[in-house]
Amino acid sequence: MTEYTLYCFHISGHAYKVALMLNLCGAKWKPRWVDFRGGETRTPEYREKVNEQGEAPVLEWDGNKRLSQSAVILEYLSEQFGKFRWNNDDERREVFRWLFWDNHRLTSYTATWRYFVSVQKTPDHPAAEVFRARATAAMDILNKHLAAKKFVIGDRPTIADISMCGYLYWPEEFGVNWERDYPNIGRWLNDIKALPGWKHPYELMPDRPV
Amino acid sequence: MTEYTLYCFHISGHAYKVALMLNLCGAKWKPRWVDFRGGETRTPEYREKVNEQGEAPVLEWDGNKRLSQSAVILEYLSEQFGKFRWNNDDERREVFRWLFWDNHRLTSYTATWRYFVSVQKTPDHPAAEVFRARATAAMDILNKHLAAKKFVIGDRPTIADISMCGYLYWPEEFGVNWERDYPNIGRWLNDIKALPGWKHPYELMPDRPV
Repeated sequence: MTEYTLYCFHISGHAYKVALMLNLCGAKWKPRWVDFRGGETRTPEYREKVNEQGEAPVLEWDGNKRLSQSAVILEYLSEQFGKFRWNNDDERREVFRWLFWDNHRLTSYTATWRYFVSVQKTPDHPAAEVFRARATAAMDILNKHLAAKKFVIGDRPTIADISMCGYLYWPEEFGVNWERDYPNIGRWLNDIKALPGWKHPYELMPDRPV
Repeated sequence: MTEYTLYCFHISGHAYKVALMLNLCGAKWKPRWVDFRGGETRTPEYREKVNEQGEAPVLEWDGNKRLSQSAVILEYLSEQFGKFRWNNDDERREVFRWLFWDNHRLTSYTATWRYFVSVQKTPDHPAAEVFRARATAAMDILNKHLAAKKFVIGDRPTIADISMCGYLYWPEEFGVNWERDYPNIGRWLNDIKALPGWKHPYELMPDRPV
């Protein structure tokens, strides 16, 4: 069985998407802590050897094989494990339609909103309000979508669900109450939580070298 | 030959990606102007009938078939026309790695930076600086990447190039000079411009009903 190494750090919901996928697939994997706050992803070494895009997550296997971009890694793992995948071209495009929307809107704006509120601790920065407005507009769209669907594209979970929940198990860190504000999202997050292998991001990813 | 309708508006670089692809493929298509500034994408009608994600572009054909998310539409058209596509799984993942990076970083931050500067005309809004810093960090990564490659994944153009150039033919609208600031991006934009069928966004998309 391939042994995977995941470049990650505990506060990254982007990395959590892949950590969760690996766990849900029963993969053999270990985390490799990235010193994000210490600037590791901006170093020439990281950009030359690990990821020119200067981001985590990065999945590494067989010594020198590497993939970055969480959605691309999720697609790769869904093929390797034959899990959380589509059944036909229409489903595939629907999965990717939500993956792109997630990367552009839901995850991107939520991550930065949380960054201002809980990481940088500047909730009153005027940019925080821009990101809050955009993140909650995305949550509104998702909440409506999930009124009619159990999972993002239908009755069963796919990598679209695993991607889109990336930052959403931290509602207290940006000040949302799912049950009160977006009940369909709350119900859906509980359904993902019930999948065998689910763990909270802080249980899956380290906050220091391991 | 399928006749396509593209929901678009002249200032949308997201829509331009698809308009450009249609033109480069020699497709039969017509624009359908979206009244973005008048709030059309936020109306219940648009969300119910055209795109629940509340965005343009949307591609429509055969009366009732629709796709949204520019990258998903580009992938669909590359399959229909057999153009700007990958040759194997490794190339496919490399194309998607840049498509996701583009949607999350390059296009997303550049679009909003330009929005503050040239559309809303509030270049001094504190959020504009956040988007400027993130957009130029992305341009820096792309400029380095293009030092060693003619197009994004190698010697020939793919949908990754067509996606990534979406907002970049408007440098004066956010205050960048490609030749001076990011010369490899400038060279690459000229190479895309040289492809048969290339047109500037304002030549392809209307600013009022047509």
